[in-house]
Order: sequence, then structure tokens, then C-alpha cells
Amino acid sequence: MDRLNQKWILQHRPAGGVSAADLELVHAPVPPPRDGELLVRNLYLSLDPTNRLWMSAREQYLPPVGIGEVMRGVTVGVVEESRADGFAPGDIVMPGEGGWQLYTISAARLARKLKPVPGVPLTAHLSILGPTGLTAYFGLLEIGQPKPGEVLVVSAAAGAVGSAVGQIGKIMGCKVIGIAGGPAKCAWLTGALGFDGAVDYKAEDVGAALDRLCPEGVDIDFENVGGTIMNAVFERLRQNGRMALCGMIAGYNDEGPLPGPRDFGRILMQRLTVRGFIVIDYLPRAREAFTRLGQWIAEGRLKWKDHVVEGGLAGAPDALSRLFTGNHDGKLLLRISPEP
Amino acid sequence: MDRLNQKWILQHRPAGGVSAADLELVHAPVPPPRDGELLVRNLYLSLDPTNRLWMSAREQYLPPVGIGEVMRGVTVGVVEESRADGFAPGDIVMPGEGGWQLYTISAARLARKLKPVPGVPLTAHLSILGPTGLTAYFGLLEIGQPKPGEVLVVSAAAGAVGSAVGQIGKIMGCKVIGIAGGPAKCAWLTGALGFDGAVDYKAEDVGAALDRLCPEGVDIDFENVGGTIMNAVFERLRQNGRMALCGMIAGYNDEGPLPGPRDFGRILMQRLTVRGFIVIDYLPRAREAFTRLGQWIAEGRLKWKDHVVEGGLAGAPDALSRLFTGNHDGKLLLRISPEP
Repeated sequence: MDRLNQKWILQHRPAGGVSAADLELVHAPVPPPRDGELLVRNLYLSLDPTNRLWMSAREQYLPPVGIGEVMRGVTVGVVEESRADGFAPGDIVMPGEGGWQLYTISAARLARKLKPVPGVPLTAHLSILGPTGLTAYFGLLEIGQPKPGEVLVVSAAAGAVGSAVGQIGKIMGCKVIGIAGGPAKCAWLTGALGFDGAVDYKAEDVGAALDRLCPEGVDIDFENVGGTIMNAVFERLRQNGRMALCGMIAGYNDEGPLPGPRDFGRILMQRLTVRGFIVIDYLPRAREAFTRLGQWIAEGRLKWKDHVVEGGLAGAPDALSRLFTGNHDGKLLLRISPEP
Repeated sequence: MDRLNQKWILQHRPAGGVSAADLELVHAPVPPPRDGELLVRNLYLSLDPTNRLWMSAREQYLPPVGIGEVMRGVTVGVVEESRADGFAPGDIVMPGEGGWQLYTISAARLARKLKPVPGVPLTAHLSILGPTGLTAYFGLLEIGQPKPGEVLVVSAAAGAVGSAVGQIGKIMGCKVIGIAGGPAKCAWLTGALGFDGAVDYKAEDVGAALDRLCPEGVDIDFENVGGTIMNAVFERLRQNGRMALCGMIAGYNDEGPLPGPRDFGRILMQRLTVRGFIVIDYLPRAREAFTRLGQWIAEGRLKWKDHVVEGGLAGAPDALSRLFTGNHDGKLLLRISPEP
């Protein structure tokens, strides 16, 4: 059975925002899997700010995607052929490196079989029960070290990671303020998600809003954005405050260094801790996190939204750009092919 | 018995380096101590980079010294009159707030009686067995978290804190590189103190020197200086590296924010931890540190130098300015009056 793959090949490093011209959609036959390999048909592709980093030559936590290589991406797929024990056609898996492609040949040892959770859609394995959930869980609990009564501010709070962080913060007993773009997102945060306050950065000065919502200052900045929004929160971190530095999307479309807050000296004067982290460092502890996240979901204490872009692989570059404009509602995913 | 005090009063906030014109040396009678108080004649005054901060209106970890107030300073002195149990004339003490003055009236509950250590001069209680030693000890061990085989870079390495940090780093099994100004200081680091390498920032490019001395990168930056020297070390911090942010003397003579490293994004990409600290947070644990520091001194594993400026209180502003030019050799102290 000859399968024709579709795959996005990185043609050159984007200047500014990603456009479809930076990649080429190539069609090519899929080789058969060898011993120890699986042939996976991808169902969903996770689109994340970090994808833009991978396209750049910037110093980062993984090697940049090479020019001429398939664009890196995390997927969920269905096994169509298995040459490995423990995997059978029909199994739902997260292949080791899915990529922006219809079919992936994955080493079975790098693939993770996903157990369906009743009432939870498959897409959740790329969001709240996937890397997104792990990022929120470990980033807040390990890096942010929240204590009851502390003030937690989350940027990109209506985003996939941010909305989970804020809810986990509430579970931990924090006062939680979210920063998001537009009244609908802010209303979702303070309504369905139970945040204590929300700042619409498109409509108000972030610093002034924080002064109103948490005049006592900020203990934890869960930072997804960088730039001026980060600076506004950083300037309000109080003694022994922490910044869990998860992302700096405000700068990913630019070349050159990612600037920090204006007065680095506050780290000294207020004994702040600024700590960066990458979720892949926590993958060995994924089970612990998924167990707890799953409990909170079952108890109705942790909500999330998946935003699935339809239309297939061809739309991947355009879909990615939505992350930089906020033109999406929930964890951004692309449907690559229909669920079995 | 009427004693005439000499005290330096802050007249206005310095612009740039401190000069004697920023303060006024006032003579006034000393009031008698009241119940629970001691009258202390100060012997030595500690001069530290942070003194310059206290003179500024900059946001900091203690309230700035008020205009018209006695300049804040840490001293060691001798009790001349005691109105408190447990203290007698002749006792050597560190008063609660000594100040830039000849006599201090100190609440006895804020004074610490100093036990003479055989073979150790009194001045050590303002250096290796005082705040300097505590800063080095807790800053490196608690904030830097050194592990054997790791690379530790110390700026202002021939200074009071830096030289102790480097030696403790060696005791902990680190590879230690010091950054200092001039060949004599560098030779002291790699000679008497046993550092693995030294960078003369006045004679060579710090980044290039680090690339030569520790091509593997840096695990811990014990940062005393800030500015371009900090940036050179920061750019070489490798994955999971730490910056113990102890001081930023390069910026203390300026107004406005204290700038950070060029590419804050490295904190994210390399999962760095940048943490500020102030020694006063560790005062409750001073005994633990002094015990261990004392052992290392007794074993000959920890050396230090006290640089005592003679000539009395009148020279305090000039003496302080030496910290900013490096024109001193060891922990900078001013002799206020003769030892009893």
C-alpha cells in the first residue's frame, strides 16, 4: 500500500512573522517502517510559540530546525503499521517527533501510547494532558513555588499554558490576576476560570491595572510574553518574588537578543529569583503531573479549550501566526487528518 | 565625663562618586546612655559598596539614609559605659547601628558581643568573621549551590567578598576563575588563594579570557560588579547555570535603573536561575557560618586581607571612594579610634 506523505520543509529562516513562503509543502511517498518502527498517520498538530523559535537560528534549548528539514512539531496520530512489540494498528500515539507532516515513521521506543480518558477528547493530549499541562504544572509548582495567599500574575493568561497556570494557582490558594487581550478573554478568566482579576492589555495600561488589582505587589510572575508586559509585572514583584520564565513570545518574531526588564537591579534589592525552564526537562515526571491534572479535570476544577483549525496541513503556517496576534481561543491545534 | 562625638551627617545625595562635600563632619556632645543602652566607642568602620546605595534615593533593601541623618555604617567598638545586664566596660561589641561616628549609643539588645579569636585581629569581625564572610558563605552555598567539578566565576574576586567566595568554591571542589583589576591582584588569586585562573579586566577582554580559561562554560556567576563584566560571564552561563547576584557596584555611582545582561532570553533558553540576595536575610544563621568559616581559617584554608585606612573619621568619604577605583587591597576598613 503506497501512502503519499505531505510534509512542510523549512526553506529559509523567517524574517518577522512566519509566512507560507518560508516553507514548502512537499508530497513524497512514505517508506515502509523498519523493525522497531511505527508508521503513524498524524491526526492533530500542536502549534506553539516555541515553533517560531525552532525556525530561527537563535540560541535555544534544542537545535534549530535545519533548512531543508521537515518542520518540527508535536503530534497525536494513529498507528497504521507496526513493526514493534506493544503497538498495533489503531493505537493512538504521540510519536517521538511528529513533525508538520501527514505520516511519521517513528521509533517505537520514542512513541508514547495514549490511553483514552472517558469524556476527554484526543486533542487534550496535546493540551491540558500534554506538553501544555506539563508546562503549567511544573512551571508554576516547581519554579513559581506558590504559597497560599500569594499574588500570582500570569501573562498570556487566556492562552493554553496561562489559563492552566491561573487555575492551578487558584487551587494552590493564590490570588490570581491574568493579563489577556480583549474583554471576552478577560471575562472568561474572571468568570468560568475563577481568576481574581484580569487586565486587558489592549485597553488599559498594564502597570496601572496591576496597581489597582494588586496594590500589595506581586509574588509570582508566570511570564509567557516578555517585553513591556513582563517589565510591568517585574517592576511590581515584591521581596522574595519569583519570575517563572516560560516564554517571551513578544520577541520571537525579531532577530537579536531578547531584552529583559528595565531595572535588573531590582533582582538584587528585592531578592528576586528569575528562573527559566523548558518543559522537556520535566518529561521524566510527566506521569505525576498527568495524574494530578486528570484529578482536577475530573473534579471540574481545571477547564481548558482546544481551538482546532480545520483544513489540513496546508494551513499550518497561517495557523501558527495566530499565536502572535491572539486570534485564537484556546490551545491552538491543526487537524491533519480525521480521527479513525 | 563629657565626650565629644564626631559624626558624618548626609547633606545631600551624591551625584556620581561620593565626595566629602556630600556629608558634613559634625562635633556634638554624647548624651549619657539610658537604661538598656550602651555607650560604645567605635574602633573600626566597615566600608562597603552598599554604603553608596544607602546614600542614594534608589529603591533598595533598606530605607535610604535620610538627609540630615548620621551616615549608616557597620562598626566594631568598645563599651565605655553599660546600662544593660551582660555588658561591661571593655567589652568588644558590634553595636546595632554603629554609624559613621566616634561614639554610638546602642540598645544592648541590638548589640552583639564579640568573642576574641586567638590569632585573629579584631578587624576580622568586620570582614571574614563579619558581614563579608556571611555574604560569601550564604551567597555561594545557598544561592550558588556549588557542586564539585562545576565552574565558578567570581567578579571583584580580589575584594573582600570575592576572595572568600573563590576560596569557599575551591573547598567545595569547584574550578574557580576570578576577575580582578591588575596583575598583583590576579597573582594573589592564583597564588596564595589557589584559584584556577584569573582575568585581569584592566588588561584583557573578559569574554575572551573566559573562553580561554573555561571553554566549557560557566555554572555559577557570583556577581559583585554588574555592567559589562556581568554580561560577559552571563553570556557564558551554561545549561542550569546560576547567577548569585550579590552586588552591581559598576552602577552604584549612576542614577536610574541598573541594566541587566544583553540577552535576558538566555535565562529561558539555558534554564538559568538568577537570584538576588542580601546578607541581612541570613543574620539569624550567622552562628552556623562563623563556626565553619572559623574552622577553615584555623585549618589555613581560608585567607583574607584587611585594609585599614588610618587617619580617623575625617577620611571616611575618601576611603569609601577607593571601593570604586579598586585602590585598596583587602576588606576596606577605617580606623576610627585606637584599640583599648
